[in-house]
Amino acid sequence: MSTAESDVGTDPGSGRLWALIVAGGSGTRLWPYSRRLRPKQLLPLLGERSMLQATVDRLAGRVAPERVVVVTNAEYAEDVRRQLPDVPPDHVIGEPAALGNAAAIALGIGAIASRDAGATMAVLTADHDIAPVDAFHAALDRAAWAASRGYLVTFGVRPTEPNTGYGYVEVGAALEAAADSAGAPRHVVRFVEKPDRATAEAYLASGSFLWNSGMFVWTAPAITAAYRDHLPRLARTIEAVAAVVGAGADLGAALPGIWAAVEDRTTIDYGILEPSGNVACVPAAFGWRDIGAWPQLADALPADDQGNAVRGRHVGIDTRGSLVFAPDGARVATIGLTDMVVVVLGDIVLVCPRDRAQDVKALAEAARAAGWADLM
Amino acid sequence: MSTAESDVGTDPGSGRLWALIVAGGSGTRLWPYSRRLRPKQLLPLLGERSMLQATVDRLAGRVAPERVVVVTNAEYAEDVRRQLPDVPPDHVIGEPAALGNAAAIALGIGAIASRDAGATMAVLTADHDIAPVDAFHAALDRAAWAASRGYLVTFGVRPTEPNTGYGYVEVGAALEAAADSAGAPRHVVRFVEKPDRATAEAYLASGSFLWNSGMFVWTAPAITAAYRDHLPRLARTIEAVAAVVGAGADLGAALPGIWAAVEDRTTIDYGILEPSGNVACVPAAFGWRDIGAWPQLADALPADDQGNAVRGRHVGIDTRGSLVFAPDGARVATIGLTDMVVVVLGDIVLVCPRDRAQDVKALAEAARAAGWADLM
Repeated sequence: MSTAESDVGTDPGSGRLWALIVAGGSGTRLWPYSRRLRPKQLLPLLGERSMLQATVDRLAGRVAPERVVVVTNAEYAEDVRRQLPDVPPDHVIGEPAALGNAAAIALGIGAIASRDAGATMAVLTADHDIAPVDAFHAALDRAAWAASRGYLVTFGVRPTEPNTGYGYVEVGAALEAAADSAGAPRHVVRFVEKPDRATAEAYLASGSFLWNSGMFVWTAPAITAAYRDHLPRLARTIEAVAAVVGAGADLGAALPGIWAAVEDRTTIDYGILEPSGNVACVPAAFGWRDIGAWPQLADALPADDQGNAVRGRHVGIDTRGSLVFAPDGARVATIGLTDMVVVVLGDIVLVCPRDRAQDVKALAEAARAAGWADLM
Repeated sequence: MSTAESDVGTDPGSGRLWALIVAGGSGTRLWPYSRRLRPKQLLPLLGERSMLQATVDRLAGRVAPERVVVVTNAEYAEDVRRQLPDVPPDHVIGEPAALGNAAAIALGIGAIASRDAGATMAVLTADHDIAPVDAFHAALDRAAWAASRGYLVTFGVRPTEPNTGYGYVEVGAALEAAADSAGAPRHVVRFVEKPDRATAEAYLASGSFLWNSGMFVWTAPAITAAYRDHLPRLARTIEAVAAVVGAGADLGAALPGIWAAVEDRTTIDYGILEPSGNVACVPAAFGWRDIGAWPQLADALPADDQGNAVRGRHVGIDTRGSLVFAPDGARVATIGLTDMVVVVLGDIVLVCPRDRAQDVKALAEAARAAGWADLM
């Protein structure tokens, strides 16, 4: 038989690929850029397009906008529709409350399955930087191929450092039907939570532990069956959503009632993937970065010849290893900064050492206490 | 006879006190606030009023605005007139070029002497912070009293540190007619240039060396005679200016011609006071500060309970000893800064360690090279 790679292009499943983008959260560690009503996924952190728009842009050639569904906080839904004019407005679904991503994903599954019962769907988050696009597409194709064979597929990112902030996936042999190449989908041996430093170093050395990216591909029938097996009450949520959408009723009006009945506040990893024996992992050949806080944004921007990450206009003398983020046209002049963060947004300025950036959330709280409620 | 202090209030000379304010220079070490066409003396560094306006305000009760004369760069003259609407417009004189303060002061002397041949005048700079006002007035009164006896009077500021950036005045005995109090005008033994550290420490310990403030009081006849003795060509400049003003002619139109003839490019200290044997010094009981650069501005602002000097709106966590200068309503949030300078002016931001603030001039040059010519 032919290899997985050559199978993929002609696989009828991938022609019907949908995308379910989970765009909740607010990103408080990117304050004051990110605020409650201006969450990081809606901000143009890395360029002209927001993280969410970049997520949709990245699907071009694989998933058309009319097959994109976005689940987000209800209060962000209008902004999401504005940012994604090519996505049908009723594909943008506002959760009445955040109940964990197993519920959010169930909502999206119902919305997609009601439109395409046999859909293959990629579940993506809106706040990751992924490049290059062709490597991402190749991984999507491999994952869709594995999903068409019934697997729940996750993407595993090859670790570049002993990171203790991510969960890991231990992978085993390549799937039976796939060629045993570096990018081939593999069986998942187990999921592991955030490890300690020594464990993370052992994982890095072993080569068989990958970062759990939080992105998945599966078919509607396979994931619905998995919910039925492991989170049966949320399987009824999928059915309820699909029934409302299938009847042409107003999902926004029905959702508070459906949401009030949700009892399982859990994550898809813990609630479905870990107990399932049916999980494959596609080792990702793309770069993947969670832009969680200012230092990660600095790492995602190109460095200038002084090792500074600059977005905006900067003149520096003896400034090194620093982030200058001034996307609105402000001009920043610095002398003698080392590993600092300078953020200028309109008339709001943040200055801190890079290694204190984890305290930005506390700073936002102090700002709130000082009466800067409009910046929250 | 009565003491100097009680004499002063009834001295006929002080009723005719004029002020000659020298407001040249641009203050490049306060970039980007101070710029060529927005020099520091025209900026509200310490409050709502500019340094120049504060200089005039400080004279209230001693010199009325109609007896104020300002010598400034020609390109600042209109702004000076706008800032000082109570000073007669023709009392604001724009130098065609900066030729040293002996020439600038000669210009002002001519303008005053033509209006009041026997005037006593206080020569003041526009970029010093002086407080409290009543101590300043008391010193002015003592200086006017000494000037009425024919002395050229300088103000000496008692050193609070072994500063190597100032010139010093060594003082001797109190003037014969004055009581020997701490504030009594004294004979000047000698002027000394900026000392080295060890010398400055010896000066501080001795108690008889005072900082040369660059402010003076004298009568028009006494200072004109001194120019005639020591800088006779500039004495002719005084006469030429007085003749033009006395004839009701347009000084602005005549000045380029007068200025073209100036050959002595020197300072009043070097050209007049040091060679003169006729100099007295009033020890100043007021605080006096040259706001030359950002750290001096930080020292002039009140410190908050973390030792930060803040003008504007600031929320900080673990930020100490830093200047936050954001007078236009910007909000600055900081974490973990120690002895830093953060300046926000519209959409221009400066960040540097306090001990690198002397490089601001070089930074401005780098900004010019980067094409930020509009900030020069």
